[in-house]
Amino acid sequence: MKNGLLSHINSPQDLRNLKHDDLIELAKELRHFIIDVVATKEGHLGASLGVVELTIALHYVFNTPKDLLVWDVGHQAYGHKILTGRRDVFSTNRQLGGISGFPKRDESEYDTFGVGHSSTSISAALGMAIVSKLKGDIKHHIAVIGDASIASGMAFEGMNHAGVANANLLVILNDNAIGIDPSVGALKQYLTNVKNGTQKRENIFEALNFNYSGPIDGHDLPKLISELKRLKSVDGPKLLHVITTKGKGLKSAEDNQVTYHAPGKFNAATGELAPKNNQDLPPKYQDVFGETIVELALQNERIIGITPAMPTGSSLKYMMETIPDRAFDVGIAEQHAVTLAAGMATQGFIPFCNIYSTFLQRAYDQVIHDVALQNLPVIFCLDRAGLVGQDGATHHGVFDLAYLNCIPNLVIFAPKDAIALRNMMYTAQLGIDFPLAIRYPRGRGHVFNWKEPFSTIKIGKGQCLKDGRRIAVISIGTIGNTVSDAIALSDLKDDIGHYDIQFLKPLDEELLHTLFSKYEVIMTIEDGTVMGGLGSSILNFANKNNYQKHIAVHGIKDEFIGQGTIDELKKLLDLDAISIQTRIEELIFFLDHR
Amino acid sequence: MKNGLLSHINSPQDLRNLKHDDLIELAKELRHFIIDVVATKEGHLGASLGVVELTIALHYVFNTPKDLLVWDVGHQAYGHKILTGRRDVFSTNRQLGGISGFPKRDESEYDTFGVGHSSTSISAALGMAIVSKLKGDIKHHIAVIGDASIASGMAFEGMNHAGVANANLLVILNDNAIGIDPSVGALKQYLTNVKNGTQKRENIFEALNFNYSGPIDGHDLPKLISELKRLKSVDGPKLLHVITTKGKGLKSAEDNQVTYHAPGKFNAATGELAPKNNQDLPPKYQDVFGETIVELALQNERIIGITPAMPTGSSLKYMMETIPDRAFDVGIAEQHAVTLAAGMATQGFIPFCNIYSTFLQRAYDQVIHDVALQNLPVIFCLDRAGLVGQDGATHHGVFDLAYLNCIPNLVIFAPKDAIALRNMMYTAQLGIDFPLAIRYPRGRGHVFNWKEPFSTIKIGKGQCLKDGRRIAVISIGTIGNTVSDAIALSDLKDDIGHYDIQFLKPLDEELLHTLFSKYEVIMTIEDGTVMGGLGSSILNFANKNNYQKHIAVHGIKDEFIGQGTIDELKKLLDLDAISIQTRIEELIFFLDHR
Repeated sequence: MKNGLLSHINSPQDLRNLKHDDLIELAKELRHFIIDVVATKEGHLGASLGVVELTIALHYVFNTPKDLLVWDVGHQAYGHKILTGRRDVFSTNRQLGGISGFPKRDESEYDTFGVGHSSTSISAALGMAIVSKLKGDIKHHIAVIGDASIASGMAFEGMNHAGVANANLLVILNDNAIGIDPSVGALKQYLTNVKNGTQKRENIFEALNFNYSGPIDGHDLPKLISELKRLKSVDGPKLLHVITTKGKGLKSAEDNQVTYHAPGKFNAATGELAPKNNQDLPPKYQDVFGETIVELALQNERIIGITPAMPTGSSLKYMMETIPDRAFDVGIAEQHAVTLAAGMATQGFIPFCNIYSTFLQRAYDQVIHDVALQNLPVIFCLDRAGLVGQDGATHHGVFDLAYLNCIPNLVIFAPKDAIALRNMMYTAQLGIDFPLAIRYPRGRGHVFNWKEPFSTIKIGKGQCLKDGRRIAVISIGTIGNTVSDAIALSDLKDDIGHYDIQFLKPLDEELLHTLFSKYEVIMTIEDGTVMGGLGSSILNFANKNNYQKHIAVHGIKDEFIGQGTIDELKKLLDLDAISIQTRIEELIFFLDHR
Repeated sequence: MKNGLLSHINSPQDLRNLKHDDLIELAKELRHFIIDVVATKEGHLGASLGVVELTIALHYVFNTPKDLLVWDVGHQAYGHKILTGRRDVFSTNRQLGGISGFPKRDESEYDTFGVGHSSTSISAALGMAIVSKLKGDIKHHIAVIGDASIASGMAFEGMNHAGVANANLLVILNDNAIGIDPSVGALKQYLTNVKNGTQKRENIFEALNFNYSGPIDGHDLPKLISELKRLKSVDGPKLLHVITTKGKGLKSAEDNQVTYHAPGKFNAATGELAPKNNQDLPPKYQDVFGETIVELALQNERIIGITPAMPTGSSLKYMMETIPDRAFDVGIAEQHAVTLAAGMATQGFIPFCNIYSTFLQRAYDQVIHDVALQNLPVIFCLDRAGLVGQDGATHHGVFDLAYLNCIPNLVIFAPKDAIALRNMMYTAQLGIDFPLAIRYPRGRGHVFNWKEPFSTIKIGKGQCLKDGRRIAVISIGTIGNTVSDAIALSDLKDDIGHYDIQFLKPLDEELLHTLFSKYEVIMTIEDGTVMGGLGSSILNFANKNNYQKHIAVHGIKDEFIGQGTIDELKKLLDLDAISIQTRIEELIFFLDHR
């Protein structure tokens, strides 16, 4: 009978009443349930398949939610969600109004800590464990962290403290040798040696005062259960090294772990990916970056490419394949990535440091202290800037305009399309004497014929996209295309001028003087926080120059934005074409009726 | 003869012509030279005394500046500065217009990488080493890093990459078991065991694929020289573990390493500290924090104190001494500190996470992703906000208002004086349902009788400090005291109203409506970047509400600020009382003549 067991599991308590043989059957059902739902609803597949047995074992052995379980990142927590009362809503995963793709405190008492970015679990679980100790609460605190995430500096900081904190912390190292892309670095090599039995002497975790056990087979449910039970009576910080296979149970997913991290729709029985009709679409910005850096680096041997653990997502993989000695995946190590780039720039090389906007938050000090203060020509390519869609609040790249805007020396550029991205990359590698941030969004642009001959972009210059009579709309980046759509929809299009400022910093003051002189009203539009970004910069300019014109500032308000498709979110935030059209027309109406 | 050798060392090349015995004599002279200058000119003493022999050995063995030497943090680089052509200007150290207290690229070709914040050296030197390899340049790349700094996550990220990068990198671990305060954590315990010979098996650095050697006596110059020479021919990543004594050569400094980290003026012969006449001065904000948290925590057992490696600097040491089980020094680990606090907050405890403003940049993502997004009631005490003085550009806390202002849910408060700091701490621990940042400056306030009975502060409310007729000056935080001084100087004081907004977020919109209605002109003043801070918030408010009044925005312009006393810097930046008075009076003059 299909889901004969799983359909009766409404909480971990139900699970704890099963026999060991039934647990093994439950693992099969849970695995198939995940495959069936993700096959049609999409999502992160491989990570959760890899921890089916571990998830069951944890909820079986530990008294969740009293015992506190923290999942690092959370891609792997689908099984956890399904077993903790969310089986019947799991089909809404990552959708607008549905459950989150990551553990989230609002959603369930079993989600003890909200995650999304990596390497936070040890610190969070240690904080919980210290409080339990102070309260005299006897309970367990478990952080489940992958081998890619544990190699990040923050996880090391957590272990360094935990090793001397004398708190009841269990770290489960879920070692599948892969994050989104294959793991890298010395620690990965060390873990490989442990698995192979060639690591004879050193135990890095014991050196940090953890009680180490393992490695054990993470798909052997009885073994997991007995080992977890044993660890319940071990005091202090302890680490269980568990070996798992990402994508376990779906052959295609095991064989193609990068593709099946988040495969889109696929055939649940065969694993075959749903055909994609991409040949008629403009390219992703990621591929424009990836192909362009290869093209440039083949001509300019001083170009370096750097990604912290996102070779596939960023498309730096093209350069890693073509020019491997100048393209580096440094692992989940944004801080290191930025300062590594700074060190390279001191020696006359030209590092393109590609980091998702939301992850550059991890290296904010390095941008200020190591790059901008020294005015080093590092080129930051901020991928997935703006709204990212279903990953939701943890991953939107909406703060970057604001948090970069206050940094001296830094030039901040956002291309409106693939050609501008390409030409800015070209311009930067010709030689700049300042650090540069180029922000661009996730996904496809609007331009098909993007591989035009290169041309230079003038630093600090905006451009007129459309002349108008009464209102000047100033946009930055790809949201400008939505503004163009909005204007095309409007009957008042002759009234509307549209300007792509291109550079948040330095501002094109000459252009702005022209606009403030010519137009009756100004509107700014950006897919970042209103506070501190383009709107704030234009207000500052106007105030400094005593322009008294009304300025309508439009962007992301002061609140976190949830999940949904990018189109859905744009509508919710009045950043879709129709909403923008309405806003513009209201402003013109206001001019006529003031 | 005094400085018979040192006075002839104008570059490391001069040093390389000396015999070994002369080098030992030079070490004595260098040590005394540092002591003599720092005794009268002040600065960071202990760290540089500890590496006198190491500094000489490095410049003797390696062909600097062709070989690239990166000092982590840079407190220990005084000897390096003196030996690399800056002996005669060393007395200007940390002064306005003088040489920097840290290595700085602008200053010397021997300063290969600007430092100040910790744990950047491995990443930077690795970047240099990779470029050298790509260029085919045969040279050495050396990172000198302390045991406190190497325990920070960023250093681990650098080592994790270096271990597999096959580049010519030498890491010198300068192990003196202390940063500014004594080192903490599992790695420190591990290093202690290595020194004691009780660490039998594990070698954490070999586990990361480094060629490890040591520990050796860092004051044994011939041994250092021979070991460094040997390492020149060792390929790939290598780590030399050197044991030193912070403050070496001045008994008081060896015996009181925390005090003599930066002792102020002292007697060069005896080490005796110059008497300080502090009893007649108002307390430091740090002590107000430190004493208040103890006072509160004795009454509220849910209060936790956290510092990343600054127990003395932040004065959390008072709580660590009084209530050690609830006060944590987590080491140089700002990322961990913030998420640890978040984990504690999920369990109903009240963490006061004390981090210097400039160092919170290291945990920016954790503030957004782990605290604010989950709306957890973590209380950030941002010490050393605003201008910090002689530490200069790397350490000023001038970005915090801007980088925090764009984060949803976060409440941002800046006390005008010690009483407001104390009362906000009191208010916060009564129970808040949002994260809170309290920013306050380095040094002493103006209030003597600060230990008044506690009273609550109303969230989001500003206060009128002085009523006026024509201009409203809106300040935030302690710069308000300078504004008060400015008004007291002015003959136009009846025209000037002065308002302490207290909260950058949420803004007191009711107060602002009153001010915009009543006054002819508005001035904002803050000791943070104009872009994104109070000025930007007030401009946004005015624009949103269609106020057309002129707003003079005054604060830190879009440039990095160098070193000098705080008073000197305030004058340079027009943030002293006389400059502010002039600005205000000019605005009134402008009103009369427009």
